[in-house]
Amino acid sequence: MSVDTQQAPTELTDEELAGLDAHWRAANYLAVGQIYLMANPLLAEPLRPEHVKPRLLGHWGTSPGLNLVHTHLNRVIKARDLDALCVWGPGHGGPAVLANAWLEGSYTETYPDITRDAAGMARLFKQFSFPGGVPSHVAPETPGSIHEGGELGYALSHAYGAAFDHPDLVVACVIGDGEAETGPLATSWHSNKFLDPVHDGAVLPILHLNGYKIANPTVLARLPEAELDELLRGYGHDPIHVTGDEPAAVHRATARAMDTALDRIAAIQRAAREEGATGRPRWPVVVLRTPKGWTGPAEVDGLPVENTWRAHQVPLSAVRTNPEHLAQLEQWLRSYRPEELFDDAGAPRPAVLAAVPEGPRRLGATPYANGGLLLRELPVPPLEKYAVPVEEPGARMHEPTRVLGDLLRDVMDATADRRDFRLVGPDETASNRLQAVYTASGKAWQERTLPVDEDLDRHGRVMEILSEHTCQGWLEGYLLTGRHGLFSCYEAFVHIVDSMVNQHVKWLRVTRRLPWRAPVASLNYLLTSHVWRQDHNGFSHQDPGFVDHILNKSPEAVRVYLPPDANTLLSVADHALRSRDYVNVIVAGKQPCFDWLTMDQAKAHCARGAGVWDWAGTEDGSREPDVVLACAGDVPTQEILAAAQLIRRHLPELAVRVVNVVDIARLLPSGEHPHGMSDFEYDGLFTADKPVIFAYHGYPWLIHRLAYRRTGHAHLHVRGYKEIGTTTTPFDMVVGNDLDRYRLVMDVIDRVPGLAVRAAAVRQRMEDVRQRHHDWIREHGVDLPEVADWTWEGSR
Amino acid sequence: MSVDTQQAPTELTDEELAGLDAHWRAANYLAVGQIYLMANPLLAEPLRPEHVKPRLLGHWGTSPGLNLVHTHLNRVIKARDLDALCVWGPGHGGPAVLANAWLEGSYTETYPDITRDAAGMARLFKQFSFPGGVPSHVAPETPGSIHEGGELGYALSHAYGAAFDHPDLVVACVIGDGEAETGPLATSWHSNKFLDPVHDGAVLPILHLNGYKIANPTVLARLPEAELDELLRGYGHDPIHVTGDEPAAVHRATARAMDTALDRIAAIQRAAREEGATGRPRWPVVVLRTPKGWTGPAEVDGLPVENTWRAHQVPLSAVRTNPEHLAQLEQWLRSYRPEELFDDAGAPRPAVLAAVPEGPRRLGATPYANGGLLLRELPVPPLEKYAVPVEEPGARMHEPTRVLGDLLRDVMDATADRRDFRLVGPDETASNRLQAVYTASGKAWQERTLPVDEDLDRHGRVMEILSEHTCQGWLEGYLLTGRHGLFSCYEAFVHIVDSMVNQHVKWLRVTRRLPWRAPVASLNYLLTSHVWRQDHNGFSHQDPGFVDHILNKSPEAVRVYLPPDANTLLSVADHALRSRDYVNVIVAGKQPCFDWLTMDQAKAHCARGAGVWDWAGTEDGSREPDVVLACAGDVPTQEILAAAQLIRRHLPELAVRVVNVVDIARLLPSGEHPHGMSDFEYDGLFTADKPVIFAYHGYPWLIHRLAYRRTGHAHLHVRGYKEIGTTTTPFDMVVGNDLDRYRLVMDVIDRVPGLAVRAAAVRQRMEDVRQRHHDWIREHGVDLPEVADWTWEGSR
Repeated sequence: MSVDTQQAPTELTDEELAGLDAHWRAANYLAVGQIYLMANPLLAEPLRPEHVKPRLLGHWGTSPGLNLVHTHLNRVIKARDLDALCVWGPGHGGPAVLANAWLEGSYTETYPDITRDAAGMARLFKQFSFPGGVPSHVAPETPGSIHEGGELGYALSHAYGAAFDHPDLVVACVIGDGEAETGPLATSWHSNKFLDPVHDGAVLPILHLNGYKIANPTVLARLPEAELDELLRGYGHDPIHVTGDEPAAVHRATARAMDTALDRIAAIQRAAREEGATGRPRWPVVVLRTPKGWTGPAEVDGLPVENTWRAHQVPLSAVRTNPEHLAQLEQWLRSYRPEELFDDAGAPRPAVLAAVPEGPRRLGATPYANGGLLLRELPVPPLEKYAVPVEEPGARMHEPTRVLGDLLRDVMDATADRRDFRLVGPDETASNRLQAVYTASGKAWQERTLPVDEDLDRHGRVMEILSEHTCQGWLEGYLLTGRHGLFSCYEAFVHIVDSMVNQHVKWLRVTRRLPWRAPVASLNYLLTSHVWRQDHNGFSHQDPGFVDHILNKSPEAVRVYLPPDANTLLSVADHALRSRDYVNVIVAGKQPCFDWLTMDQAKAHCARGAGVWDWAGTEDGSREPDVVLACAGDVPTQEILAAAQLIRRHLPELAVRVVNVVDIARLLPSGEHPHGMSDFEYDGLFTADKPVIFAYHGYPWLIHRLAYRRTGHAHLHVRGYKEIGTTTTPFDMVVGNDLDRYRLVMDVIDRVPGLAVRAAAVRQRMEDVRQRHHDWIREHGVDLPEVADWTWEGSR
Repeated sequence: MSVDTQQAPTELTDEELAGLDAHWRAANYLAVGQIYLMANPLLAEPLRPEHVKPRLLGHWGTSPGLNLVHTHLNRVIKARDLDALCVWGPGHGGPAVLANAWLEGSYTETYPDITRDAAGMARLFKQFSFPGGVPSHVAPETPGSIHEGGELGYALSHAYGAAFDHPDLVVACVIGDGEAETGPLATSWHSNKFLDPVHDGAVLPILHLNGYKIANPTVLARLPEAELDELLRGYGHDPIHVTGDEPAAVHRATARAMDTALDRIAAIQRAAREEGATGRPRWPVVVLRTPKGWTGPAEVDGLPVENTWRAHQVPLSAVRTNPEHLAQLEQWLRSYRPEELFDDAGAPRPAVLAAVPEGPRRLGATPYANGGLLLRELPVPPLEKYAVPVEEPGARMHEPTRVLGDLLRDVMDATADRRDFRLVGPDETASNRLQAVYTASGKAWQERTLPVDEDLDRHGRVMEILSEHTCQGWLEGYLLTGRHGLFSCYEAFVHIVDSMVNQHVKWLRVTRRLPWRAPVASLNYLLTSHVWRQDHNGFSHQDPGFVDHILNKSPEAVRVYLPPDANTLLSVADHALRSRDYVNVIVAGKQPCFDWLTMDQAKAHCARGAGVWDWAGTEDGSREPDVVLACAGDVPTQEILAAAQLIRRHLPELAVRVVNVVDIARLLPSGEHPHGMSDFEYDGLFTADKPVIFAYHGYPWLIHRLAYRRTGHAHLHVRGYKEIGTTTTPFDMVVGNDLDRYRLVMDVIDRVPGLAVRAAAVRQRMEDVRQRHHDWIREHGVDLPEVADWTWEGSR
């Protein structure tokens, strides 16, 4: 697809240039001020050591580049009346983004005590990276931000997530050349193969090559320019270069580049939206090559600093004690000519603000960066339509995720016009049995198609790329800009995004405490193809530890559900899809699974989060049971019920209680998690002194870590996955990990005191079946018939 | 750098072509046989349902492509007498790699019961993905493999790791077009900027575009070829294309491509090694475009299968029950003309093996894939040279990682000729204070340099790229091929490689049980810039959860150390560097830290892993202490000692024991981890019934999860990091998380029964200091002088 620029190249007038340069200088001044000053913000008097913070913290190196981009985004937003958002990949450049928000006024609107005057400037400076103040990075506290940027790698996928289904939005995305080396960033360039120019907005990547990381040159900055261009064209982009270190020339070139890029974007969108173009367009990318720490000290203590890695953090480190450093700092600050930029009261002069847009067009005030403001209730249909009929527990089987797929199809369908729901996953939607959604929306795909392809759709809202990082980044960006979604993933491989979810939970934890941040839809994981059913893949695909990982995070923001069947999966999914500001982790199988609860029972059970299944036990209510069989997860639930059935048959005198836990945080004390149970509730469910045999889906010690404070903890015995994995039969997997029904019965016999002598024979019989199983599968390759054909015999 | 091919393009003779094709057909036959058959391996009789496995598991789609590559690697290895290794990125294609190992005889040498005859073939078939058999993927059990490939993303970084410092080795690396979409793979192409053509071997990437993933077309396969070429050239490679679906033509093209690529590699190496060329060469990449599931069923049940995603796993799914499927399977197997390939005894005919290399040149027999065979003891110098002098505990401070840097420098120096030690890290070696190593070896860098650059070296063995994934992949490949190394990383961001370390631990767990796999050097992490000292970066950089993650893994293969000072860091690092087959995690600070132990004391303490610091406590040995103050980690140790000092001053009658834990797995029961303590030892250290106030570096519940079985567990009270983070002072961080000395004293007062009335006043005093701290830092921005200037007053 060929797209011509629509207008003559922009040439700034001298007045425009002066105004933009003044804005840039003001932002640079404010950035330096934040890093260094705690008094004398306007340099009304000569700089003295006591004006300088005792601890100098922050990152100068990237700040002048971010300020340049912000200044020029302001210009084009205002000139074109754009809806724009910017993702600041080098989020450590917090001083820059804060400076710009203060200049445009959005900062003061958000934090009224940080006024746009000298007193406010002093507070702006002091609070930065100061105890009780604001973080050094672009953070949830920063107006206009959806991206922390500390960890690096996710800027571009966040930008695409923000642009999907926001057709009028332009998402600029600054990518540092450090971040560009990360894997997640490197593959997220291919997101352009999934961006629909009709229904999605545009992403304008700005690759900022300032040349250095903390201590090294960067890979991309040292490529020959022709090779870099090949790389970017190979990624599907048309590069537009801005290179320089002379401010006026760079301003002129940046203005030209921004206009060229936005003209191309407009032309691409026009072609797709009005002229029916269907080819994959080549979107522009701006390559901005300016010095690291530009306009900062050229040399410090005889070593070059500007345009080297030494400019990364604080170029002058001993300002309070070294008079030469102090003088250099004052000279540096005065080089921006603050008296031209701020009036006597400390407010920015009108010329500085000439190109700043108004109201919600300002980057620090756009509602797209406070997505909860745009959020609508998700139309989740009543669950009864999808519920599987359960006349009696365990009489039939369904594939739970397939049942959920029908619900998701209808959510997808109900949002066909609104376009505010997406399903993401790494090439596994169908493998995870959710393919019903394709009847409501195909898979997003802008590359060429072949006749053999199925369900690909230029306008689809199912997103599949074999990159968990990209899936996660897209979804985070989508949610933080006010939409809904679900990520379905193989359980083991969700660990690929461990560090990304860390950052998202941190983001949610902070935003929950900021009254001006409106709640956003939760990030929902459906983890399936789980540890117990990796028949095709084996050990590398077996890992249930994501639950452990997520439960280390801020309790206010994390929820974990292990629904034992189809109807409970529907219930927790419904709850998760409607919730706000959480990370919800749902672990559920895709293989046929017995249906235990009716829809009404499922709803009640999930609302409680944990409860007695009295139809499965043998206690008569007159006294406490002899033993509690507890379970969490679909496979453990089946094994516990099979164990309960064996006990009923072989040791009918034993009073057995069966407890199923859906919401795993219920096991925590009520003071440690909002869903935690009181000790009174816990003891009522699990007893205070009876043996509890707990069959858990994942690592068994997690249950201990949750329940160690409980009175009855010494009687708690947990079975779960203990890293015994390979390609084998489903039942062999549970036997290998001692989670099987026979072992559970043996556990009961070993722990309940005072059993009849007969129990020893029962125990031996269990042992014998396990041995028989071992021999049988090695010969036949399938599970013992009595296991494969097992059914629940029905309640009393 | 211009490199001409040195020879005329290869043209296979008809006989060569016939031999290669026979080998390929044989491998394809054996791959299909493994997926389907449990009897009648040579089709000596018509295929009947009972010859077919009851569960059909495995991945056919990628197998013919892997077989083609293996066949042609055989040819060039033999023709050129190459030392070669292949990393099979699509590791799910286990049947292919197993088939080739069986054909070449390396399989039988490794597993003598799988003979190269009909009986062995039957066993080869049956064992595949069968209970008690071998995994479905290329796995540790597979001869010739260093790469599981189930998770996808790490093939190319593994290949580079294998090639570093193996100048005579050619590492072929098959990259599936699915894997190519992952972030880690996408950035690992840039590894060529770090490969030294003089001292390193070569990597030959073979990008296999079979067009489809599990359910979708792939991004790279659908790029216009010119765009793909731009991408690959942008990555620094010269593409060589092989495209086709007609076997003879593809054989000829593949042979030409292999020879062209290897000629170029040879020319590059000659230019660098003999002619002094110093430019970064453009290494070749082979782009192989053949159908997914090539030679398999074209259609099944009326739907196209060959050359679609439907060929991914098992193309014919109902062979036992559907006679049409059974007939198709027989036809498919016979299409390879097994009678031409195997003699009556079932052995491969000589023509099939004509191009197979001999002995250790075979890909399944190369010692490079069993790196322990090549491993030499690492020359770690005696620690005394680096030990910091400690006349009395806490009299001086050192930066522990800087002290370690001196040791690493000398290890680097001692391996200057051997070149079997590398340090990897994401741009943080100097930030982590290890820069002394640069005096022994610079940072690997093949791109252009500028005068301002420091410590870059075309031949360096310090590896820095801003990609934790690439660092981890390089190091894994380096270790698995018989060398040593250490990965230094910011503590929070090591979560980026959570899933990679999962796979590496799984690999080690399995290899430890395979007698033919020689032990390899451990993977050593130095996690620094840790949670308590993220002064510049704040919350996004604060996460101590990697320890929790690693302790979920197989206990036999994981070790975690938290040395409290410089000398203990030296001791555990020495131990880690000498160890085998572990993942060692060392958490240690880079900030000035009090020196507590002499080198001798440190060695003894680290050997025990946990012990009483009697100089720090006040018990007199005549009875059990009133309270145990326990600590693990450098910052918690300082706070515990400060608390002990406060108690000594304010509550001198209290008998306090101080216990420091270096080896965190010591807390586990002896039956659960090789380093676990017996209950007798544990009770001796922590008592069975006295309050234990435990200050831990990370999430406090980890200590409970390790110690929940101990008699005294109900008396254990743990303080640690609870997700309270931001940019603030070091002491404010511990106060915010209730880990500070004053809170610890309050904890003691709250938990020790029968204290004097005076204790209430002491408690209030502690509370007051915390409040004073809070007000002070918000005004001054630095810690209270009494904290900042705190020193240990010396022992009794």
